[in-house]
Amino acid sequence: MKALVYHGPGERAWDAVPDPVIVDATDVIVRIDSSTICGTDLHILKGDVAAVTDGRVLGHEAVGTVTAVGAAVTGFAEGDRVLVPAITRCGRCAYCQRGMPSHCQTVGGIGWIFGHLIDGTQAEAVRVPYADTSLYKVPESVTDEQAIFLADSLPTGYEVGVLAGRVRPGHTVAVVGAGAVGLSAILTTGLWGASRVIAVDTNKFRLDKAREFGATDAVEAGDSAVADVKAMTDGLGVDVAIEAVGYPETLRTAAALVRPGGTVANVGVHGVPVELPMHELWIQNVTLTMGLVDTVSIPTLLTMVASGKIPSEKMGTHRFTFDRIGEAYDVFADAAANSALKVVITP
Amino acid sequence: MKALVYHGPGERAWDAVPDPVIVDATDVIVRIDSSTICGTDLHILKGDVAAVTDGRVLGHEAVGTVTAVGAAVTGFAEGDRVLVPAITRCGRCAYCQRGMPSHCQTVGGIGWIFGHLIDGTQAEAVRVPYADTSLYKVPESVTDEQAIFLADSLPTGYEVGVLAGRVRPGHTVAVVGAGAVGLSAILTTGLWGASRVIAVDTNKFRLDKAREFGATDAVEAGDSAVADVKAMTDGLGVDVAIEAVGYPETLRTAAALVRPGGTVANVGVHGVPVELPMHELWIQNVTLTMGLVDTVSIPTLLTMVASGKIPSEKMGTHRFTFDRIGEAYDVFADAAANSALKVVITP
Amino acid sequence: MKALVYHGPGERAWDAVPDPVIVDATDVIVRIDSSTICGTDLHILKGDVAAVTDGRVLGHEAVGTVTAVGAAVTGFAEGDRVLVPAITRCGRCAYCQRGMPSHCQTVGGIGWIFGHLIDGTQAEAVRVPYADTSLYKVPESVTDEQAIFLADSLPTGYEVGVLAGRVRPGHTVAVVGAGAVGLSAILTTGLWGASRVIAVDTNKFRLDKAREFGATDAVEAGDSAVADVKAMTDGLGVDVAIEAVGYPETLRTAAALVRPGGTVANVGVHGVPVELPMHELWIQNVTLTMGLVDTVSIPTLLTMVASGKIPSEKMGTHRFTFDRIGEAYDVFADAAANSALKVVITP
Amino acid sequence: MKALVYHGPGERAWDAVPDPVIVDATDVIVRIDSSTICGTDLHILKGDVAAVTDGRVLGHEAVGTVTAVGAAVTGFAEGDRVLVPAITRCGRCAYCQRGMPSHCQTVGGIGWIFGHLIDGTQAEAVRVPYADTSLYKVPESVTDEQAIFLADSLPTGYEVGVLAGRVRPGHTVAVVGAGAVGLSAILTTGLWGASRVIAVDTNKFRLDKAREFGATDAVEAGDSAVADVKAMTDGLGVDVAIEAVGYPETLRTAAALVRPGGTVANVGVHGVPVELPMHELWIQNVTLTMGLVDTVSIPTLLTMVASGKIPSEKMGTHRFTFDRIGEAYDVFADAAANSALKVVITP
Repeated sequence: MKALVYHGPGERAWDAVPDPVIVDATDVIVRIDSSTICGTDLHILKGDVAAVTDGRVLGHEAVGTVTAVGAAVTGFAEGDRVLVPAITRCGRCAYCQRGMPSHCQTVGGIGWIFGHLIDGTQAEAVRVPYADTSLYKVPESVTDEQAIFLADSLPTGYEVGVLAGRVRPGHTVAVVGAGAVGLSAILTTGLWGASRVIAVDTNKFRLDKAREFGATDAVEAGDSAVADVKAMTDGLGVDVAIEAVGYPETLRTAAALVRPGGTVANVGVHGVPVELPMHELWIQNVTLTMGLVDTVSIPTLLTMVASGKIPSEKMGTHRFTFDRIGEAYDVFADAAANSALKVVITP
Repeated sequence: MKALVYHGPGERAWDAVPDPVIVDATDVIVRIDSSTICGTDLHILKGDVAAVTDGRVLGHEAVGTVTAVGAAVTGFAEGDRVLVPAITRCGRCAYCQRGMPSHCQTVGGIGWIFGHLIDGTQAEAVRVPYADTSLYKVPESVTDEQAIFLADSLPTGYEVGVLAGRVRPGHTVAVVGAGAVGLSAILTTGLWGASRVIAVDTNKFRLDKAREFGATDAVEAGDSAVADVKAMTDGLGVDVAIEAVGYPETLRTAAALVRPGGTVANVGVHGVPVELPMHELWIQNVTLTMGLVDTVSIPTLLTMVASGKIPSEKMGTHRFTFDRIGEAYDVFADAAANSALKVVITP
Repeated sequence: MKALVYHGPGERAWDAVPDPVIVDATDVIVRIDSSTICGTDLHILKGDVAAVTDGRVLGHEAVGTVTAVGAAVTGFAEGDRVLVPAITRCGRCAYCQRGMPSHCQTVGGIGWIFGHLIDGTQAEAVRVPYADTSLYKVPESVTDEQAIFLADSLPTGYEVGVLAGRVRPGHTVAVVGAGAVGLSAILTTGLWGASRVIAVDTNKFRLDKAREFGATDAVEAGDSAVADVKAMTDGLGVDVAIEAVGYPETLRTAAALVRPGGTVANVGVHGVPVELPMHELWIQNVTLTMGLVDTVSIPTLLTMVASGKIPSEKMGTHRFTFDRIGEAYDVFADAAANSALKVVITP
Repeated sequence: MKALVYHGPGERAWDAVPDPVIVDATDVIVRIDSSTICGTDLHILKGDVAAVTDGRVLGHEAVGTVTAVGAAVTGFAEGDRVLVPAITRCGRCAYCQRGMPSHCQTVGGIGWIFGHLIDGTQAEAVRVPYADTSLYKVPESVTDEQAIFLADSLPTGYEVGVLAGRVRPGHTVAVVGAGAVGLSAILTTGLWGASRVIAVDTNKFRLDKAREFGATDAVEAGDSAVADVKAMTDGLGVDVAIEAVGYPETLRTAAALVRPGGTVANVGVHGVPVELPMHELWIQNVTLTMGLVDTVSIPTLLTMVASGKIPSEKMGTHRFTFDRIGEAYDVFADAAANSALKVVITP
């Protein structure tokens, strides 16, 4: 088959590689019908993720069709249309049992293994370990293009932003950074009854998208952003501030936006340490959360997409066939300039 | 009456001052039968708390007897033996209604006003605003010396450490810093079923006290402390790490001790910003909590003291009369060297 | 002033009575601008509520204007436009401190005192005890007719139905009984992300209203209702069943509708014991909740009404002036036949 | 091998039956080193459980040693010493993923299958389906006789009583019925900081045991029991009432003991409907919980047993070898008269 193979920093190629086969009795093979690219893939290509080595097939998001089933798999059969989430779950370690497969101890201490510790989903097919506890069937009423964003970005914004941030009815929420993940948070704040959602970004396209995705207010990032948001919130700040960028400055902005007793939910992936004003924050009864997605919210999100309450398909702005995956990477690498959110890649 | 008055950085005196009187209908006057000194009082004396100005009576912890009652007070009467907590609660602002009077918007945006924004409890008497919603009656079976530590240090360790840290049955908890507040956390981890409590400190006296207060393990702080604790916890770290010192280094130690999915509960008062390794932590699904005590756990703690399950009197190591309060400050200012935890000051 | 006075079972009159005056320093007097009638008022008139005696002014819901303020009241001033909720809260007893003023120990062991233990709101004016902790200011952008239903019916459906039932994103909820309170539950299920809301009632008008208020499905009550709902829910039943009628049969229906692990939230007021099939239910891991409203959700609901997300004004179907309050009672007493939900009564 | 076989109501025999063998790749075979008898086994023998048919091997509790492992099992190996819990968990259905395998949809809609839908553990060996997600390794420091009660009775008292009842620090808890399961609740109330635990029973032996297991008070069941308990609790009643008998009368007693806002946790297995005073309860803001155990608390309980904080071995009062299992049944069937709690059965 063909697959996007990593060949060291800056080097990727749409190569011919061996077809995946069943290795363990709990595996299935999935033919990829739809994949996409994540910001993490860009980090890998920069050489930032040491665990990814030459020869690795990239990608950790897919919708596809089961083509082979291991002997111990009872929940899936050939022909099933499935969502392959970013996280693999053994279902029995202490982390999986508490609903935190992001740290599944069985599959590697971390639940993200596709395109990282094993071959991934930017390929014509993929081997899926622990299929019974990891895959999700896609309901008929949900299209591939709606489901594909539930593999990672939508649950990331929802779980690491909205759930970890404990958004509750009546809350005012600020989302710092309106890229794909920030917009995913915005799209799902309504599930917990937020009354006001303030998007903060430097980019006009993203702020427009934020409003389209449900933000009630859009604030241009910059020196006056904190003051602008405080002016909207009785001077005390927001109940929940979601950071969806991953820089020291944006995390400090999120921390400055939150009122006493509020939560800062860090969703961004950080590359360097962050100096936090603990001398000001300690007395504010603020909670700071952070983490890798668990993807355990997928059943809820599939239900909401199927019921028409989460228009996830809006995340897809550009479409490419597999053989043009290089172009897809180029567009996504400069997403804001290309007015891109997520790209959809299909056979 | 006589009271301990602040006269600028480094200056304090046991002065004659006017007797406190009822100002608002919701006030009571309390004669002080027992007071104590908090680490915050030491910060004030260093000049670190700008809101405290020359002439302010210090102190925010007391047990005493009601001697006068405002016209609107219905819950307390002359002669009642009461606990005066560090936090004043109006009972009606949004923060008080959510159980977070640490940020009572009515009394000053912050619930800590005694010895800070109004005259305090290191005195022969004190005016207590919002008495009905702030004071607690002391049960007959609880002594003054058991109750006095429930004014601040015990609820701080419990609420900001154990409750915020979400200690649960079976958990392993590390407490970094075994001073009065760290020991308060140790003393109350059992209320939530911790199976193992590891104290980390540089001081042998404190580590011995930690064991006496319920720690199952004592680890000397230093270069190998993190490795020592990880070796006790399957290599992954503790479920909850409570920071009870307030330095960048100790907060980073606490963050290094916690396992994926765990909580770092910061109890320490920080004076400078803290650089946190967010590039390592973001993927660990760690929660960092912090805050000023609410003192809303006092009824629970009084119940547990009355039932004999929390021996709070163990916190008191030294006793002084009011006229020797200067000595009390000297002993407490160098607590570890003096084998002191909390000092008790009485008429 | 004039007020609706109870004169024993079946007897009510729009009588001249003395004007209310400040009794305690924590009282205010409110001129009534809008009131309404509750199902409980009908029970009282039948003689079902022994604590209500001859001479009592009825009513426990109002929007009005403050005309006098007790000496200890600091949160309200003459001229303030306020919501008078069904529940009075002292703010300091153990129940008030845990957010459960429905059982305020200070005001009578039960927080519902208006038109019950003290004179009520179906009058030109009312004395409001514990005003600082009980009243809510009405935001300018919220009309009287939007606010009046937040005094009791909307928080009852929301707190005793949706909150107690622990509705969560993706849930399917059944509401048995689509009268004013059942519709209030339906109107607020979206605050917690319900994906499907099934109304069950015998009355076509109410089922139509249910759809208008947000129900996704309407099922006619009767022998096949349980089977009909199970057929919609994979055969297992709903996540949350809200009972909003108050009869043994309807509570058993709610219990039959819920899936294993689900919650039955009883909102109805029961007049007789109920035989429950505990021999079938015990193994179903079902939770049954019940209770009097606390009205502590009013700030959240006011925020949602102000933001346009809860169209509470839809509850008002009929309008009367005070002197026609008798007619209002007649219409409301036979609400379903009169296509009535709630009546609005104004000067 | 030999096993205890059910042959219709009242009929049981220690028969020779075929050895169990691996059927599915996810099975293991466990040699039984220790088993016990549950109240449910007595119900089965009376013919109360229709799903149990002639020829079924009884029993759903065991500690044993793995002797054979299916091809897909990776978490266990021959020779492992394991706890076989009452509940089997597939690990992937919606119920298992929310931590409620009591209703595992994969293994039969109910997670209790041993000695019910498949052959059980009162035998020399047993086939364990879904071994990876169902079995627990027993730590070396925990004896067989400590572990065996964690298969069902201890987690039942803890999960269905203490956890469902939401016992919290400072609470007063009543336990109605001090048999094996009631005592299990009493033994674990301390994990959540209960300050007072009141046992209610008719039997002096059980009340003595209750005190030994941690009850602070013992009340003789009877006409004055409710008044006695209310007199101990300010007249309002207990925070949590745990019902551990299963009769209408005892459930009504539990409901009568609880204060407004409290929880009645029904642990008893009911055989007939129960008439509840909903006309009195609806206004009390009481929650009634019920359910089959999930056994998901086993890791926590094993940790607490290993740390010496839960002396589970105290549950075992009588010991029998397999060939005397008939006597074991006779003793347990009349447990109170025989001063028996749980019997231990070994090869």
